[in-house]
Amino acid sequence: MSGEDRGSGQVRRVRVEALAPEMVLGPREARHLYVLRLSPGAEVLVFDGQGAQAQATVVELDAARAILHLGESIGAAAETPQPLTLAVALLKGDKLADVVRAATELGVARVQLLVTRRADAREIGAQKLSRLNRIAEEASKQSRRAVTPPVLNPVTLADFQWEGQLFVAQPGSSLRLTQHLDWSAPVTVLTGPEGGLTTEEVNQLTAKGALSVTLGPRILRAETAPVALLGAIAAQGQ
Amino acid sequence: MSGEDRGSGQVRRVRVEALAPEMVLGPREARHLYVLRLSPGAEVLVFDGQGAQAQATVVELDAARAILHLGESIGAAAETPQPLTLAVALLKGDKLADVVRAATELGVARVQLLVTRRADAREIGAQKLSRLNRIAEEASKQSRRAVTPPVLNPVTLADFQWEGQLFVAQPGSSLRLTQHLDWSAPVTVLTGPEGGLTTEEVNQLTAKGALSVTLGPRILRAETAPVALLGAIAAQGQ
Repeated sequence: MSGEDRGSGQVRRVRVEALAPEMVLGPREARHLYVLRLSPGAEVLVFDGQGAQAQATVVELDAARAILHLGESIGAAAETPQPLTLAVALLKGDKLADVVRAATELGVARVQLLVTRRADAREIGAQKLSRLNRIAEEASKQSRRAVTPPVLNPVTLADFQWEGQLFVAQPGSSLRLTQHLDWSAPVTVLTGPEGGLTTEEVNQLTAKGALSVTLGPRILRAETAPVALLGAIAAQGQ
Repeated sequence: MSGEDRGSGQVRRVRVEALAPEMVLGPREARHLYVLRLSPGAEVLVFDGQGAQAQATVVELDAARAILHLGESIGAAAETPQPLTLAVALLKGDKLADVVRAATELGVARVQLLVTRRADAREIGAQKLSRLNRIAEEASKQSRRAVTPPVLNPVTLADFQWEGQLFVAQPGSSLRLTQHLDWSAPVTVLTGPEGGLTTEEVNQLTAKGALSVTLGPRILRAETAPVALLGAIAAQGQ
């Protein structure tokens, strides 16, 4: 993924700490621009990962440092009307990387990792969490979002709190997400680990107001379900 | 993926050439059962990849051969009301493998590969096509479908024919798939390569009756778009 770009002629996007009249970039981002053979005078887009985005001009550039001057602000585009959260159980191996990447493209404002009965709590460490956050940042750039969704340290399902609507995919449900989706408040979609949530876990969620919705009559892998649910939301135009 | 199973206590599914009173399996499938330590007398499910599915009993088993006796038939479940086709442009690297796997879980009846203006026609060979078909077969087993969707040799976009509805995801469209989806005829979803379909290609499709639909305001990778669109259909309960 890293450094993949869709042809030439497109404006490069650069993550900065904060938008400021003069922005000094360290080796990591400078190197990225340097490798792209940008020269002083080149136009780029800068964004702070919190929703602010603007044009900027490269003033100085070498492999270790870059200086950019701020240009016109560009409003945050491509965000859902209210924050969209993906709450996803810890998954084995590298599956969360794919989920975080697709979820970022599909517009989530954050990813909350969950420890559930059938999810292995040993499946995450500081290093892995930091890698997932880097993946979210790359995916955010690629999909030209102004926001980088944070991937949050796991909480137990019992401790997980949400505002607005929560949708949980549940085999056997016949409720359709699209008939209940309401952007007057934040929206969360929640999916389970390999082997699924237990019936008791789903019941605890619905007792707190979650809606269990269909994803069709087939069995989906734990890493497909979140992309399918978020796809259903994106296909509504959000 | 291969051989991944969701805990013990579940009935194993075995692909056979055809359902018959006595079915003799060769080394590949026999080895699979052997490794699972099944014994004569064990119950399995057999399916032919065409929609027929039945119970069966293991009568003989060693690493190279298995004999099964047919039990009760089980109707094909988990299929869409009319055939669902994914028409997807050739993608670079191994991305089609992920797309075929998820599309199979999400219920497609076949995958039609497409050569488009920005898709590299050298990106498929007999070996790769055969691997994609194996992936569809594995995914079909895992999602307990009775049908294995074939992955079909590429055709050019200009030559691609479809029956019923065709939906193509197009940035900037505000039409929603869910408001137009109609299962009185077959349904096809079509997605482009890295860099997308050209405007001309989309216009040619819509001139033939295709509907261009939204997948939200962000830019999706070529391998995310088909899963998102098929997810939107699955979330309607099909």
